[in-house]
Amino acid sequence: MMVLKTLLLLLFLNVISFVVIANPPTCPAGLDKDCGDSSQWNGEFFPEIPNIKYEGPSSKNPLAYKWYNAEEEILGKKMKGWLRFSVAFWHTFRGTGSDPFGASTKYWPWEDGTNSVAMAKRRMRANFEFINKLGVDRWCFHDRDIAPDGKTLEESNANLDEVVALAKELQGTKIRPLWGTAQLFMHPRYMHGAATSSELGVYTYAAAQVKKAIEVTHYLGGENFVFWGGREGYQTLLNTDMGRELDHMASFFKAAVAYKKKIGFNGTLLIEPKPQEPTKHQYDWDAATAANFLRKYGLIGEFKLNIECNHATLSGHSCHHELETARLGGLLGNIDANTGDPQIGWDTDQFLTDIGEATLVMLSVVKNGGLAPGGFNFDAKLRRESTDVEDLFIAHITGMDTLARGLRNVAKLIEDGSLAELVRKRYQSFDTELGAQIEAGKADFEMLEKKALEWGEPKVASGKQELAEMIFQSAL
Amino acid sequence: MMVLKTLLLLLFLNVISFVVIANPPTCPAGLDKDCGDSSQWNGEFFPEIPNIKYEGPSSKNPLAYKWYNAEEEILGKKMKGWLRFSVAFWHTFRGTGSDPFGASTKYWPWEDGTNSVAMAKRRMRANFEFINKLGVDRWCFHDRDIAPDGKTLEESNANLDEVVALAKELQGTKIRPLWGTAQLFMHPRYMHGAATSSELGVYTYAAAQVKKAIEVTHYLGGENFVFWGGREGYQTLLNTDMGRELDHMASFFKAAVAYKKKIGFNGTLLIEPKPQEPTKHQYDWDAATAANFLRKYGLIGEFKLNIECNHATLSGHSCHHELETARLGGLLGNIDANTGDPQIGWDTDQFLTDIGEATLVMLSVVKNGGLAPGGFNFDAKLRRESTDVEDLFIAHITGMDTLARGLRNVAKLIEDGSLAELVRKRYQSFDTELGAQIEAGKADFEMLEKKALEWGEPKVASGKQELAEMIFQSAL
Amino acid sequence: MMVLKTLLLLLFLNVISFVVIANPPTCPAGLDKDCGDSSQWNGEFFPEIPNIKYEGPSSKNPLAYKWYNAEEEILGKKMKGWLRFSVAFWHTFRGTGSDPFGASTKYWPWEDGTNSVAMAKRRMRANFEFINKLGVDRWCFHDRDIAPDGKTLEESNANLDEVVALAKELQGTKIRPLWGTAQLFMHPRYMHGAATSSELGVYTYAAAQVKKAIEVTHYLGGENFVFWGGREGYQTLLNTDMGRELDHMASFFKAAVAYKKKIGFNGTLLIEPKPQEPTKHQYDWDAATAANFLRKYGLIGEFKLNIECNHATLSGHSCHHELETARLGGLLGNIDANTGDPQIGWDTDQFLTDIGEATLVMLSVVKNGGLAPGGFNFDAKLRRESTDVEDLFIAHITGMDTLARGLRNVAKLIEDGSLAELVRKRYQSFDTELGAQIEAGKADFEMLEKKALEWGEPKVASGKQELAEMIFQSAL
Amino acid sequence: MMVLKTLLLLLFLNVISFVVIANPPTCPAGLDKDCGDSSQWNGEFFPEIPNIKYEGPSSKNPLAYKWYNAEEEILGKKMKGWLRFSVAFWHTFRGTGSDPFGASTKYWPWEDGTNSVAMAKRRMRANFEFINKLGVDRWCFHDRDIAPDGKTLEESNANLDEVVALAKELQGTKIRPLWGTAQLFMHPRYMHGAATSSELGVYTYAAAQVKKAIEVTHYLGGENFVFWGGREGYQTLLNTDMGRELDHMASFFKAAVAYKKKIGFNGTLLIEPKPQEPTKHQYDWDAATAANFLRKYGLIGEFKLNIECNHATLSGHSCHHELETARLGGLLGNIDANTGDPQIGWDTDQFLTDIGEATLVMLSVVKNGGLAPGGFNFDAKLRRESTDVEDLFIAHITGMDTLARGLRNVAKLIEDGSLAELVRKRYQSFDTELGAQIEAGKADFEMLEKKALEWGEPKVASGKQELAEMIFQSAL
Repeated sequence: MMVLKTLLLLLFLNVISFVVIANPPTCPAGLDKDCGDSSQWNGEFFPEIPNIKYEGPSSKNPLAYKWYNAEEEILGKKMKGWLRFSVAFWHTFRGTGSDPFGASTKYWPWEDGTNSVAMAKRRMRANFEFINKLGVDRWCFHDRDIAPDGKTLEESNANLDEVVALAKELQGTKIRPLWGTAQLFMHPRYMHGAATSSELGVYTYAAAQVKKAIEVTHYLGGENFVFWGGREGYQTLLNTDMGRELDHMASFFKAAVAYKKKIGFNGTLLIEPKPQEPTKHQYDWDAATAANFLRKYGLIGEFKLNIECNHATLSGHSCHHELETARLGGLLGNIDANTGDPQIGWDTDQFLTDIGEATLVMLSVVKNGGLAPGGFNFDAKLRRESTDVEDLFIAHITGMDTLARGLRNVAKLIEDGSLAELVRKRYQSFDTELGAQIEAGKADFEMLEKKALEWGEPKVASGKQELAEMIFQSAL
Repeated sequence: MMVLKTLLLLLFLNVISFVVIANPPTCPAGLDKDCGDSSQWNGEFFPEIPNIKYEGPSSKNPLAYKWYNAEEEILGKKMKGWLRFSVAFWHTFRGTGSDPFGASTKYWPWEDGTNSVAMAKRRMRANFEFINKLGVDRWCFHDRDIAPDGKTLEESNANLDEVVALAKELQGTKIRPLWGTAQLFMHPRYMHGAATSSELGVYTYAAAQVKKAIEVTHYLGGENFVFWGGREGYQTLLNTDMGRELDHMASFFKAAVAYKKKIGFNGTLLIEPKPQEPTKHQYDWDAATAANFLRKYGLIGEFKLNIECNHATLSGHSCHHELETARLGGLLGNIDANTGDPQIGWDTDQFLTDIGEATLVMLSVVKNGGLAPGGFNFDAKLRRESTDVEDLFIAHITGMDTLARGLRNVAKLIEDGSLAELVRKRYQSFDTELGAQIEAGKADFEMLEKKALEWGEPKVASGKQELAEMIFQSAL
Repeated sequence: MMVLKTLLLLLFLNVISFVVIANPPTCPAGLDKDCGDSSQWNGEFFPEIPNIKYEGPSSKNPLAYKWYNAEEEILGKKMKGWLRFSVAFWHTFRGTGSDPFGASTKYWPWEDGTNSVAMAKRRMRANFEFINKLGVDRWCFHDRDIAPDGKTLEESNANLDEVVALAKELQGTKIRPLWGTAQLFMHPRYMHGAATSSELGVYTYAAAQVKKAIEVTHYLGGENFVFWGGREGYQTLLNTDMGRELDHMASFFKAAVAYKKKIGFNGTLLIEPKPQEPTKHQYDWDAATAANFLRKYGLIGEFKLNIECNHATLSGHSCHHELETARLGGLLGNIDANTGDPQIGWDTDQFLTDIGEATLVMLSVVKNGGLAPGGFNFDAKLRRESTDVEDLFIAHITGMDTLARGLRNVAKLIEDGSLAELVRKRYQSFDTELGAQIEAGKADFEMLEKKALEWGEPKVASGKQELAEMIFQSAL
Repeated sequence: MMVLKTLLLLLFLNVISFVVIANPPTCPAGLDKDCGDSSQWNGEFFPEIPNIKYEGPSSKNPLAYKWYNAEEEILGKKMKGWLRFSVAFWHTFRGTGSDPFGASTKYWPWEDGTNSVAMAKRRMRANFEFINKLGVDRWCFHDRDIAPDGKTLEESNANLDEVVALAKELQGTKIRPLWGTAQLFMHPRYMHGAATSSELGVYTYAAAQVKKAIEVTHYLGGENFVFWGGREGYQTLLNTDMGRELDHMASFFKAAVAYKKKIGFNGTLLIEPKPQEPTKHQYDWDAATAANFLRKYGLIGEFKLNIECNHATLSGHSCHHELETARLGGLLGNIDANTGDPQIGWDTDQFLTDIGEATLVMLSVVKNGGLAPGGFNFDAKLRRESTDVEDLFIAHITGMDTLARGLRNVAKLIEDGSLAELVRKRYQSFDTELGAQIEAGKADFEMLEKKALEWGEPKVASGKQELAEMIFQSAL
């Protein structure tokens, strides 16, 4: 059968954008005429936004925290110690508002319409001004979002180095990456996957890209490194050798572990489960699936998980379930703090505003003794229709306040004690000699049958779910 | 509260594309050096693809029909009369393969990387060569996909006129638009909707765009005109006045009806229901919701529905259900022939390949006496990873063969007769005097109670679902 | 083909129950020996439960209201006027805890293991003691749940009369049914539907049953009458004549309207939408579908809707969406106050405990000016594992408190005013002369095009979704 | 807080059934008067049903096989060797047609309305007559469905022994259990789980029940033993100690492994994953989750999986995905052959009739070299509305024919070879020296980076999904 040449080597066309945007002006109408002049953007990207301060629950100021008070101590730790917030560079500074049916809607005033290294550096300045105004200590980045792709891998690496050097300078002594990652899903070369691509050359290229991204994360003092395998999965099993792909993914991860150790990077490697989108099936479907993979391939001690709430619900689980599954497996490493829409079947990456949900999230975090060296990364974005610069602040403030409110509620629940006591009592029949034997794996079926015959019909108490819900709600 | 200026007037930035595409070359590697020269592309876009012919079920040739035989008569009509296929310009010629996590993957050899009028015209030539090689008689288009946006509405209209004039010439005597539509969702001006935008200026602009699109469709001899309100809905009720928006939508539709009549356009106006995506909720959720809207606002005789199978399943219905709901309401006007993935919560717009599904679709179409002046528009796209030109043909061939196979199966079912007989018998107790009174609305509760007391416990027969499934399967 | 006789006339076998329950004792272990003696149960079913009182938010007493204070005035009306709570007899007194995989778990001490009229009357006494202890004024009932089926329709009616006479007496001067309904889904005769059954005899029987249920509701002073068509739908379209079934349903409803008027029953007739379960597709899928049906068959002024939150989410909508859809159509008549689980695809009928959700529900109710003569029926049940009598009270208390808290939050939002102002401002461009023309249906496409050309590219403001969410959350 | 006594010890009430069934007659109307006389039912339960024979695709006889020809050889094995069908006793002989909103609909003529041991034995005779008429060699059973619960565990065991002795006799030399299982979900004692119950006494009781069920399966010559943990999960995390419950489940499984070995039972132990229902979350969510559990607790070599297609789709996967996941992990042990409804969120347990789906299932089975000692168990039931005895046969015949047709299609695909070739070619770049190094885990990041720099931008071929779909469809 005849097959035409595949012409993917160099893409220079994004037809959708051209459909909409007929005439790139030198300077958009409504902007002053120096919009393209980077010299004006040194250190004053958000002149109308003050540093965000804690003003308490009664404040009506949208640009103030009502619940997050960084230095306040809760449950024996400062709020900032429990919450370890991070700004996600890509959503905040590279999000354009485009969706599968719509072009970009966001034109931030510091953007000049290019993807030059100069623009990347100006954007990085905006990032650090934003972080400082919010008063957080961490940020997260994708390699290809902070610096432009070059014509060659060498050029891409050089671009990255130049931007990263500036980032290091801007970080100062206080700010560090919560984590870095390699963006292995946007470029068409990754359309069949990166570590699981059917093409050897792509596997190879991806390895080189991850190698560099780990180096850069290490250089910036990053505390973790994340793998989100957006394209590591399949669109149809009809054309896929799933077994071979999974083997390749394991080899790739093993090489990453080896390289991390070789260069002395002590940060945690994190896998971020997601069930699907963009692929029909992603190999890191959920926490249990990722854990199964790690166990199968002997990688279980080398990785933790980055749980994202929106990914949890897309996989058919509550976020709390995924957090607990990770925690009980010793794998809870980081949280991508966002939420989805319960009626929507794709990743909406919204800022979490549900107080009950935030309280459940913080219950898991407190049980985990916190997340460090992980934290809460706001893998969340403005709605497409939110186009004011201040919306970036309002969204982050609400996201931070919501989790802070969750933490305060957990403190109330713990102080009250009745929910934990309800759970403890439910299982107290196992706090016995036979219970201990069972839990030690020493109670065989013959022994148990003897007991069952001796005891007759067992008593079963009410599960008290409604009472548990009443107690939980009383803390909100 | 302070609000920064909203800078949406003119967009010249699509950051995502720049992330990926570092260096737009004058001519992509792998193409011969004349790639940007439109003169070479006159009438030979698919030199390696023959005209697609019917070769019958035993053929192994991927570039031949196995089931679709246009001139063959089935159930008293030629196959091409039942099936009235149409090529969707936007998916076939403007689809780039981009998705929310990935850049374009398709670089068709006739594209030169611009969105100029010249390029639009070359692309239109490719469209008609494609249509002719497939051997179909219809195409569908969005105004903004066939011609580039201009700096002003006047310029956009002029661009459209220039491309449309060429299309008219290329149509010849045989080919016509199944339908045209106005694309009211891509441009950022439509981010809050078109007819339901919160901005009066957008409503006004949309009206002007639809006016022109109807004129153009009329000029080309189009048989229908479609409204898909991708942005006519809401993202959150918190910021939305749904009642006012619905009223605006009704006013907009009334104006469209009036204008269509004024200019003598006799084509059917079609609403295309979709539950959501890109909005959280779209006002034309499903067939029943759209019908309710039409009835409420006195528009019920003026519109029919364009049912899309992937939209049906996203709304929680089978495609067959939506078709029957439309048909029973006298509203079945057209079918967007595609399918989704039962495990995926967004619109995948795949070509239908499921034979059972195709048979159910054709059952409704045959009961409807066909679809004319509507037809089957392939609102379906290649998978992002399918990047060969031949894939465009293979996809359409399978889509056409699948529906043709469905039609052949329906003929078998009708000839066999036992499925229809099973249904008829189930309801035969209503083929009685009392049944007729009930169906005429003349049986009151007192009369019915008297009968119930007289008759005692009613007999209830088996539903015979498994037998119905067996008979249905035997036709596949 | 041979078909065996269908043996459904009289069912005396429920195999599942027999699987589990080997030995019905005269008196269950753990009960005192008079358990089967109805004489002991006069007026003291809940001896250990006090009358439930308002104690305010700081109370830790599970048997007290923290937020619902019946006589307190909020937004110009007493809380009990806004909230009009009702106890659902069937869930509270006939719920057994059985599920598709499990037998009954609940054995309330007043039950004697029979379904006699005497037992039905004892149960009714328990119902009114429960209602009085909760301090509510309304209850809802299904005919077949409050009184046992007889061997004949006459006997069933006589049983119903006897129980209803007692209920009337126990209601006293204060308590009334919020609504009654006919249970047309449990008995095998209704397996193919009631009004939409393929069997004429079943249609007839159902009419007689509804006739009686309306009479009884009228006699008890009921304020509404509900139709939930659990079996009015299909399991497969292969064996179904959907058009004929819908026509029958319309005839049935018309007869109900006529009969209601004839006997002078002024209560509102309510349709309760549900998408599916037990049928694959239920004809009253959601609010819009039910409205479309009413419009199509000329019934639109005769019915309102009973919106159930769990049904809303099963149909792919938020509860708030369904309430607003009903409200804007003038159809919001009653609310079945419950909630589902966002990860579960069937009706869980849980008591609502989500404060944000309750606030959205109350927003719609307040915009509607309240629900009277409708109200909030707790169509919600204990979890299967909740087996203490006190759980019945705890569940209702939390359900009531949650909605009361929602109402208090709405009062805060209205007092604050900024959310309503945000919405008003979004649409202010329509508060103009052209806006008025559009809303009056007088702006034609030519006029609008002229404006669009005159105005050029329209300005589009940020949707401010995150700000709206921040304001909303601040009221919780 | 006061808590009333929990009264669950002995249940004698199933209120729902009593609601419907007022008057158990001695003999249902329409049956001849000897209905309760077991003596008439020896060996002639289905007098009007012939032995089911293969008649080929052109047959219109609903009581004949059109595709399943047991002795015909396909791909080197007899069809009965690939397909190893089994009848599920519980659905076929204990299914009542009840659902959460409806009472039983099925009254098979051999039932006498009791759950006596005598009735259980008569029913077992019907089972074997059914199996023999279908011409299959295997059956599956739940302990509590084949024999009635007694007042005590001893009595239950004695009942079971009596029925099992008869089953052994009726099996003869040809028929064997494909598998047995212990039913640990129906009785209220299991409402909080069996191995994961919060009650020690329930864990103990469950152990005794499983011990006996393994013994009985061994005695009957069963080839496998299944664990479906319908209640092993949680309804809410608020009242659950998930970590402790998972530990208990592991101890339980370890004891089962030890006991199986002790008594010399060589059958495979199988875990049957299901995501939820009846619990909100079931611990054996899907194949990957079950595998993770087995690995974590050191049980990986001791169990295989029983994949059910309806469970697969409820967990968000295609059935094919779950089969391949199990197969690649060496865990594909058995298939519960059924299907769900893509628009329904609960387990419908329908007989599979989709030919494409069956072909995918058989693709996995053939790649697995067959399923022995596992097979295809029809964990599928008649629709509630299917109430003729012949419906039991029609359903099984279609289920068997559908899988047989799938097998025939796989043979066509394998013979044609082009689909396998398409897959092989996609990965051929790994059939190289570097590919081998990667697959051996010997390619480190430095080596790979060197290659990437050397090679430049990798070539990426089309995924050819539409071509794969065309080839696949051509075999149907």
